[in-house]
Amino acid sequence: MRIVRYSIGGVCHYGELEAGDARIARFEGDPFTGIRPTGDIDEVGEVRILPPLERPRIFGFAYNYASHIDETDRDVPEVPVVFMKPSTAMAGPGDAIVYPADGELIHFEGELVVVIGKEARHVKPSEAHEYILGYTCGNDVSDRIIQRKESKFGALLIGKGQDTFAPMGPVIATDLDSSRLSLTTRVNGTVKQSASTADLLLAVPGIVSYLSRHLTLLPGDAIMTGTPSGVGPIRPGDEVEVEIEGIGVLRNRVVAEGR
Amino acid sequence: MRIVRYSIGGVCHYGELEAGDARIARFEGDPFTGIRPTGDIDEVGEVRILPPLERPRIFGFAYNYASHIDETDRDVPEVPVVFMKPSTAMAGPGDAIVYPADGELIHFEGELVVVIGKEARHVKPSEAHEYILGYTCGNDVSDRIIQRKESKFGALLIGKGQDTFAPMGPVIATDLDSSRLSLTTRVNGTVKQSASTADLLLAVPGIVSYLSRHLTLLPGDAIMTGTPSGVGPIRPGDEVEVEIEGIGVLRNRVVAEGR
Repeated sequence: MRIVRYSIGGVCHYGELEAGDARIARFEGDPFTGIRPTGDIDEVGEVRILPPLERPRIFGFAYNYASHIDETDRDVPEVPVVFMKPSTAMAGPGDAIVYPADGELIHFEGELVVVIGKEARHVKPSEAHEYILGYTCGNDVSDRIIQRKESKFGALLIGKGQDTFAPMGPVIATDLDSSRLSLTTRVNGTVKQSASTADLLLAVPGIVSYLSRHLTLLPGDAIMTGTPSGVGPIRPGDEVEVEIEGIGVLRNRVVAEGR
Repeated sequence: MRIVRYSIGGVCHYGELEAGDARIARFEGDPFTGIRPTGDIDEVGEVRILPPLERPRIFGFAYNYASHIDETDRDVPEVPVVFMKPSTAMAGPGDAIVYPADGELIHFEGELVVVIGKEARHVKPSEAHEYILGYTCGNDVSDRIIQRKESKFGALLIGKGQDTFAPMGPVIATDLDSSRLSLTTRVNGTVKQSASTADLLLAVPGIVSYLSRHLTLLPGDAIMTGTPSGVGPIRPGDEVEVEIEGIGVLRNRVVAEGR
């Protein structure tokens, strides 16, 4: 199933894409508390596609592909390296990535995102799939100047957490085997990242197990799984696309902060 | 006003403490979307006091008192050092701080917590008070072993974010001048931290201004402002108290994880 969140006539709905993604079968409710088809069919061309989650908790994994660890001159971490991005960093497909007025070096990071479907605590890797609703594409936009200054003191928020620094979408794909998906990031049509989720150091089952060993995961949580090599700068006017096999293309344009 | 969140007969309410904290004037609604006294009066002895916020976004400042920077052998950071604790780390007054089964070195950190009342973006320090609902006491419980391993790679989540690692309460005190409040942390009755919020390197107006310069603060956000010197270990069976002038005492017992 390919789930979208969208608005039509000023009202938000979840629904299921049909007919080669041309139409949406509308749902009542949401995928976390329960959905029921209403029988309404909406044309994709007549709706606004929204971020797949409304103000989620966003967890992000760092240094989770060997190729990216290499390009940052780091060692492989002793424990998984995890941070949070605030819910207000969320942006949807087609939304602007706002380039901050004082931004100097903003990078894209294409990533597979896990969407949690059920409350999870002390989950074994072999059971992780039972707690996953599906997957979406994500861009872990990062302000490298602030990130470096914060990370020097062992923490990270503003470098990853500014408004619109977590675009996600376009759909939540369920029934997807996440173990070997091709991931491609393009800037203005040029391929910058090309990898397979098979190269994740801590793969999706391990990610869900690790987090749930230490804290309670909640329905609607988004987990950004880390970025492969090829990260680089974006500037106002650029168009960034993150494409993942079986999910689709997340496309966002970079726009200078208007102040 | 001293606002409490509590349950009686299985229903949650906000209310205002009265009569020397013996009674609660019950509210309809919540302080973020609007409150109205219902006319009901509840006896404090007959209710269960809850965490003052339900699953808030929790921001935490690190290295924000010179005395604590000294005891950690760090330099003063070039930028404010901020992280997030997940909403599931929240615990209320009287709730257990759960000592993880694999915990080795868990520390208390007594802190003043700012509760945001209105959406805030690009707020000047001189206007910050307009966006603050009030203040509560907090304990930024930290797993030093995991914290050090994560921080070495420039991020921080599990070291600060395990379930029950963010006790807060007992009340949200409004109309409080946060510039010079005495803060005391006791473990089993022995004073471990004794400081004044006058010693915050980045004081409350600067904290709200800094965060809102980079991201949108939302009603109900909790900001832990940092801890002074005197942090130290806690073990199952210990009782930790964080007392702040004008707010009250946040008291929690440490309990071993039952697995």
